[in-house]
Amino acid sequence: MTTGKIYGVGLGPGAQDLMSVRANNLIRRVRHIAYFRKKGRKGHARSIVEGMLADSVIELPMEYPVTTEIPVSDPRYNALLSDFYQSCVDHLTELTQAGEDVVVLCEGDPFFYGSFMHLYTRLKDQVPVSVVPGITGMSAAWTATGQPITWGDDVMTVAMGTLPEADLAQRMAETDALVVMKIGRNLAKVRRALDLAGRTDEAWLIEYAAMAEERVTPFREAGDIAPYFSILLIHGNGRRP
Amino acid sequence: MTTGKIYGVGLGPGAQDLMSVRANNLIRRVRHIAYFRKKGRKGHARSIVEGMLADSVIELPMEYPVTTEIPVSDPRYNALLSDFYQSCVDHLTELTQAGEDVVVLCEGDPFFYGSFMHLYTRLKDQVPVSVVPGITGMSAAWTATGQPITWGDDVMTVAMGTLPEADLAQRMAETDALVVMKIGRNLAKVRRALDLAGRTDEAWLIEYAAMAEERVTPFREAGDIAPYFSILLIHGNGRRP
Repeated sequence: MTTGKIYGVGLGPGAQDLMSVRANNLIRRVRHIAYFRKKGRKGHARSIVEGMLADSVIELPMEYPVTTEIPVSDPRYNALLSDFYQSCVDHLTELTQAGEDVVVLCEGDPFFYGSFMHLYTRLKDQVPVSVVPGITGMSAAWTATGQPITWGDDVMTVAMGTLPEADLAQRMAETDALVVMKIGRNLAKVRRALDLAGRTDEAWLIEYAAMAEERVTPFREAGDIAPYFSILLIHGNGRRP
Repeated sequence: MTTGKIYGVGLGPGAQDLMSVRANNLIRRVRHIAYFRKKGRKGHARSIVEGMLADSVIELPMEYPVTTEIPVSDPRYNALLSDFYQSCVDHLTELTQAGEDVVVLCEGDPFFYGSFMHLYTRLKDQVPVSVVPGITGMSAAWTATGQPITWGDDVMTVAMGTLPEADLAQRMAETDALVVMKIGRNLAKVRRALDLAGRTDEAWLIEYAAMAEERVTPFREAGDIAPYFSILLIHGNGRRP
């Protein structure tokens, strides 16, 4: 019997027609589809492919044992997640060894701050794994602003809103173009860091880029709550003819 | 008569099936296809869509009047390019006003260091323009290495090989994950900057990511010549369970 294969498939930013042709073909044809989700939710990755799956598809939802109930710094957080990933990997390996192919749905690009990486590093020496890159959420975000993000020799920095305030401010001050992800509950800190860096007036908040609810707001006018799918951008302003 | 529309369409990194479903549909159905190329060449963007175009398609190659014959710092460079972009824009505007839709082919993602931006800024207040994001060359490059580029709170910096050596070295030293593009004739400088930053052993050179000639080399083992389609990467190594 031939061993099957795991495909870590980037779905892109959320619009179904912004996934790659390769991703589209794999998702419509494969028999096993796995995806992460929060307990009790449908799962965002699964929502993106709604209507694309074959009737005969077998779904494997992988439900996080914990999301924000335990702080990341708590050792129990790592232990719980580590056990969870291992159980997913055991299941995926079993399917593959039985000759089945499995597509794992990944929001955005699998290797760019993605959850799939935690499975990938545990799977890659056990079974064949193929990764399909995707359009990142940040690409959809700068496209939504109607302004190019980088020109000429611009330096672009991507930083997470989870960084300490002073680090964030320094990164913001020292770059041309900026992308801040994981804004959600870090919004107030991100706002203070922007002010410290003196760049508030250049910043944009993009919510739900490439999705039906897409919204682009000058950061100065943004409210006090930002959804999980929020990205902050500052456009570069480099050399151009 | 209805005005037509300009579509700036991201082709992704080079493999035909890594373009988005939206890009694929537009390219197969539109009547006018425009793309940049160097004089006497077929053009890389045009090569990517080989075999996809309708028989009736009308092609509009836009040939650069200059590429590397005049240094970027020479004022004639800017003047020549500026005139060139304006003549492209005049042609595209004329087609649009005659009711025609035009797809402009863009390697990678149009708003990420792309040439289309120079048309876009001149077109956007004249005619309807729609931009389709694409998978970036850097996504294809890190996918090719078989290692995720960023984890947890990693900071990622994107810098061009055209920057001065000291600036490059500083950027390399101060980031977790690194992407350097425009390596080509800057390879020797990039190598010195990596050494200055003490990060040579962490770096990878990816040539022709996602294309038939794809090659991944530890930077330490790279030769003295790198093609235009080269990207240097250092992977982040952040928090993970």
